[in-house]
Amino acid sequence: MSADVVARLERKLPGRVVTDPEALEPLRRDRSGAVAPGRPLAVVFAESVGDVQAVCRTANETGTPLVTRGAGSGLAGGAIAGDGELVLSTERMTRILEISIPNQLAVVEPGLFNGDLNRQLAAHGLWWPPDPASKEFSTVGGNIAMNAGGLLCAKYGVTRESVLALKVVLADGSLLEVGHRTVKGVTGYDLCALMIGSEGTLGVIVEATLKVRPAVTGTVPTIGAYFDSIPDAAAASAAVTAAGLRPAIMELLDTYMLQTVGDYHGIDLISAGAAYLLIQTDGPGALDEAERILAEVTRVGGRAELTTDPETAASLVDVRRSGFIALEATGRAMLVEDVAVPRDRMPDMYARIAEISAKYGVDIPAPSHAGDGNLHPSFLFDGSSSEVPEYVWQAAEELFTAALELGGTLSGEHGIGTLKRRFLGAELGAEQYELQRRIKQVFDPKGILNPGKVFAA
Amino acid sequence: MSADVVARLERKLPGRVVTDPEALEPLRRDRSGAVAPGRPLAVVFAESVGDVQAVCRTANETGTPLVTRGAGSGLAGGAIAGDGELVLSTERMTRILEISIPNQLAVVEPGLFNGDLNRQLAAHGLWWPPDPASKEFSTVGGNIAMNAGGLLCAKYGVTRESVLALKVVLADGSLLEVGHRTVKGVTGYDLCALMIGSEGTLGVIVEATLKVRPAVTGTVPTIGAYFDSIPDAAAASAAVTAAGLRPAIMELLDTYMLQTVGDYHGIDLISAGAAYLLIQTDGPGALDEAERILAEVTRVGGRAELTTDPETAASLVDVRRSGFIALEATGRAMLVEDVAVPRDRMPDMYARIAEISAKYGVDIPAPSHAGDGNLHPSFLFDGSSSEVPEYVWQAAEELFTAALELGGTLSGEHGIGTLKRRFLGAELGAEQYELQRRIKQVFDPKGILNPGKVFAA
Repeated sequence: MSADVVARLERKLPGRVVTDPEALEPLRRDRSGAVAPGRPLAVVFAESVGDVQAVCRTANETGTPLVTRGAGSGLAGGAIAGDGELVLSTERMTRILEISIPNQLAVVEPGLFNGDLNRQLAAHGLWWPPDPASKEFSTVGGNIAMNAGGLLCAKYGVTRESVLALKVVLADGSLLEVGHRTVKGVTGYDLCALMIGSEGTLGVIVEATLKVRPAVTGTVPTIGAYFDSIPDAAAASAAVTAAGLRPAIMELLDTYMLQTVGDYHGIDLISAGAAYLLIQTDGPGALDEAERILAEVTRVGGRAELTTDPETAASLVDVRRSGFIALEATGRAMLVEDVAVPRDRMPDMYARIAEISAKYGVDIPAPSHAGDGNLHPSFLFDGSSSEVPEYVWQAAEELFTAALELGGTLSGEHGIGTLKRRFLGAELGAEQYELQRRIKQVFDPKGILNPGKVFAA
Repeated sequence: MSADVVARLERKLPGRVVTDPEALEPLRRDRSGAVAPGRPLAVVFAESVGDVQAVCRTANETGTPLVTRGAGSGLAGGAIAGDGELVLSTERMTRILEISIPNQLAVVEPGLFNGDLNRQLAAHGLWWPPDPASKEFSTVGGNIAMNAGGLLCAKYGVTRESVLALKVVLADGSLLEVGHRTVKGVTGYDLCALMIGSEGTLGVIVEATLKVRPAVTGTVPTIGAYFDSIPDAAAASAAVTAAGLRPAIMELLDTYMLQTVGDYHGIDLISAGAAYLLIQTDGPGALDEAERILAEVTRVGGRAELTTDPETAASLVDVRRSGFIALEATGRAMLVEDVAVPRDRMPDMYARIAEISAKYGVDIPAPSHAGDGNLHPSFLFDGSSSEVPEYVWQAAEELFTAALELGGTLSGEHGIGTLKRRFLGAELGAEQYELQRRIKQVFDPKGILNPGKVFAA
């Protein structure tokens, strides 16, 4: 049967089906460390909407599980593929079909990298705001499938706010057009928003109409502020928001992160303080806003400086952007989590992380998008990231419980994938969990689209 | 059976059930002119989530159609109730449960007026951006149920972008919590976005966590610009957007509207030009942006002036805000439509409206939110707004077709309700129409929630 599926696809889509074990091996993984059991049957490199429809039809007719995959940059095991599964790669669908300046939109294929899109847009004075740390190696389709976040969300919103319309191929191969090319549109249910963040379980995104905006120009003032403690820094970021100030970027590095990033770059960051806030403002009035933020940060005990020099600013931003790489470079295995809490609960969340770290004897550096309350507690352990020890999972579960108790969520921007599916029910409750599964069945009655992701298989 | 339902509700919810015909009569109507056939059984004035649950359970058990209603300000017949139907009024659920400055959110009950909320928020330096023309007599719950738009959407987004989370009572009386209290959250499908704009067909919104932002302060420069023709004005608004400028408000009044508003206020607006653009900028850099807009508008032929005097500005805005009232004051019957098109197709859309007006011999003034491409072509005729003549419907259908041909939609912000349900399939296509109905069934298996609205009964 499996051989038959592959043979059928090879006949239908010559030159686009690969079964070479070496090519399939990396598809078992993403950047989370998760590894799917076994190896997928084949990967199909779709080149057109028609190709995607053919793959879906074949998978649906034969009941073959289908995993859609962009660049494999996910952090929740959402696009990993194993035994008996077929991979649909959007890697060759990278065209920009339209850039419209008067309509402030771009129409693109899903496999295009976020960074590549934004370089093209910049040439037209435009910008697509979603800004995940992975932007140079993650695709627009993947960003949409996960409702990607990033550093700029408090001011510029999450991916959902930057997508106008989608073309989606359903499990049965039919093509669905959802959303609107217009700014406004209220005809029936918002299936476009429903698709965003659905992690490949409802359909395959084959084309996206993106809401773009004028590129932000002018000075980008940057503030670096050191604090005596992590709660102080978290309280300072909450104070900035409470003062009605809207920084583009507001990132928090805790003590462990400062040490790790410092080690990676060979610089001393730790002697200045136990925690660090990186803040940028942009747009008209940026300097004035930065000066007000500086005053606020100083008022609550920060030792802060403000720079408008682009090079100094870039290096300060890079400290934050390289945080994950610096952690990876330690060589330790890692489980990266992604809780979000209401912004005024940031100090409490850091306190809970410290408790959990002590209780389980595990290092948990937690860089955070402090501007929007999204923390990435990263559990470090010895061994392989693909085999998370049970005590780390227990610590993680305690972390999720703490986030929920503080009015938060267990995933701000990475999604559920395989890594967090066993905890999803705790957040949604049994009734909503079941309701969501029934919605899945409406789109994918045979359950062939990314089974075992988000929901338990 | 019907009498039994009412008796059961009266027992369960003493003092909250009204069956007086005079109280029921207005519930057959909204502001669109649509009138439901017959008269509803009763109206229940819910005072709590528990009340709403009780009403839903009773309606579901007895198979009684249930129409949720805020203030009845709708323009699509979405909350009108007739024979055999029960009305669930949110009129008494008007509390503000929480305003959080550090989290930039407000938690409110659904029956609160938008204007009342914003006055409360203003006292804390905050603001909820959804800004429908009806804001003084429409509820937050209604705004969410319709995904309301308004004048500020190009810059500040539609209602969907300003809602974080909802509590919703489902048809069976169960309470569902969707969305997140946090800025980011990607746990499962975005049922919060699915609820927004679902027009009372998926559940009853009983509590909303709103995303608020710092109130916009500082000078609000206002530009008034006259043009020799409607296409010239439409082209000017497209040019402003294409130049990367982001006015808060950009409204277009056509010749008929200028005449009508002028008559209403007893002033001469028409001698200055055949069309008018009203533009406001706000926030940091507002004056600089307004000056660049002024240059752009002048460059494409506008006779424009810029004012920073608040009183002059307010009167200019009021000209636009009173447009609908001025049309009503003519005493003519009216069918108000709500198409939206990509912004660069505004001149084409106005040309098509002129053609349709000539072909059917019907006056169609079309004030528009030019900044986001949303037009309100208003078909004037003699008779009663509740009995739209067939030739007007034919003209409207031609208008919808034109909007779809231009890449637009048949409703930008008013929704489908009863008035446009016969045209919804033309926009969605048969397959998506059926898919949307199946989603409705997941939430409301017995089909008791607002039946006959959005979809044909």
